Amino acid sequence: MEKENKERNIKWHKPRITKNERRTQNRHKSTLIWITGLSASGKSTIAVELEHRLHKDNVRTFVLDGDNIRHGLNKDLGFSAEDRKENLRRVGEVAKLLVDAGILTIAAFISPYTVDREAIRALFDPEENEFIEVYLRCDLSVCEIRDPKGLYKKARAGEIPLFTGISDPYEAPEAPEIIIESGSQSLNECVDKIICHLREKAII
Amino acid sequence: MEKENKERNIKWHKPRITKNERRTQNRHKSTLIWITGLSASGKSTIAVELEHRLHKDNVRTFVLDGDNIRHGLNKDLGFSAEDRKENLRRVGEVAKLLVDAGILTIAAFISPYTVDREAIRALFDPEENEFIEVYLRCDLSVCEIRDPKGLYKKARAGEIPLFTGISDPYEAPEAPEIIIESGSQSLNECVDKIICHLREKAII
Repeated sequence: MEKENKERNIKWHKPRITKNERRTQNRHKSTLIWITGLSASGKSTIAVELEHRLHKDNVRTFVLDGDNIRHGLNKDLGFSAEDRKENLRRVGEVAKLLVDAGILTIAAFISPYTVDREAIRALFDPEENEFIEVYLRCDLSVCEIRDPKGLYKKARAGEIPLFTGISDPYEAPEAPEIIIESGSQSLNECVDKIICHLREKAII
Repeated sequence: MEKENKERNIKWHKPRITKNERRTQNRHKSTLIWITGLSASGKSTIAVELEHRLHKDNVRTFVLDGDNIRHGLNKDLGFSAEDRKENLRRVGEVAKLLVDAGILTIAAFISPYTVDREAIRALFDPEENEFIEVYLRCDLSVCEIRDPKGLYKKARAGEIPLFTGISDPYEAPEAPEIIIESGSQSLNECVDKIICHLREKAII
């Protein structure tokens, strides 16, 4: 038993499959594409279209957004300032696991505060371009006209407290990797811009 | 703008890439292999070896365990009964995202209570064999002799409260998909048994 014990302890230290081994397997790098912008600026639309384009190119992808986070992992969280911060912290940590697993991960969250976005950036390797911040620059007036879920209308009526752009600030990224004019550009133009960046950085 | 707005709303509903599309891309199914057992029963050793074997077969894998969960996503949690429950709940939800992303996910956690393991099982599709519980049946006496981190010694000395097997119960699974005698079988035998099950169920 002592001998086997010793052997098992040696085995214990066999390293995991590394991120680089997964990247070799997949033939592309893994990275987090963080899409930030006002409600109705087009985050989920662009995320889903980007994923379709990448999937066709045989890239392993996954989209994280309110749909699959708020109903599962973060269903214990509400919308207080503290809970929103924790919501984004967890999304960043999950994205890190997905990137470690070799997945080109796309996250679509309003994420209005610089401090929260920068905390997520700090989890990733800048040398490897592992965190790509995509800022959807779209006028509030355009978002308010779109208002697909009627949220701006409710916020203006005072029915939603602390609504980004209306009663709570949106801090625009100061040095995002990509800026997209999602109020005036077509969906294809928006997605092309991200794809071109990924090719330029040899991520795909 | 109104027209574009309408177009954008249609695009909004473009479906995500599905789990099945990812499985086709990867040429294997995705599933959660949940390894449960006492401390020092061999969970992480088997998880890491299993991952190496699967990776060689070009399977997309990822291991979740204390190492990458407790220092990241769950670093806000301690070891109270409530925090342990939340620890496992989050691991289950993250595993679900990884399985949705097409990854054959391996989780290695003591997970001593049936109620917590069953709550995780309930997140997955039984028809698709998406949750495979692997019970490492290993006598406490064997684990205590191994004691690679000296935890049993500390627990016996009363230095660790609520230590599974010593001062807190381990509820053995009643109907796990796989039982492994990790106290007496070799590492290869243990891993072979899981691989055979995955082939039998046409997961790989």
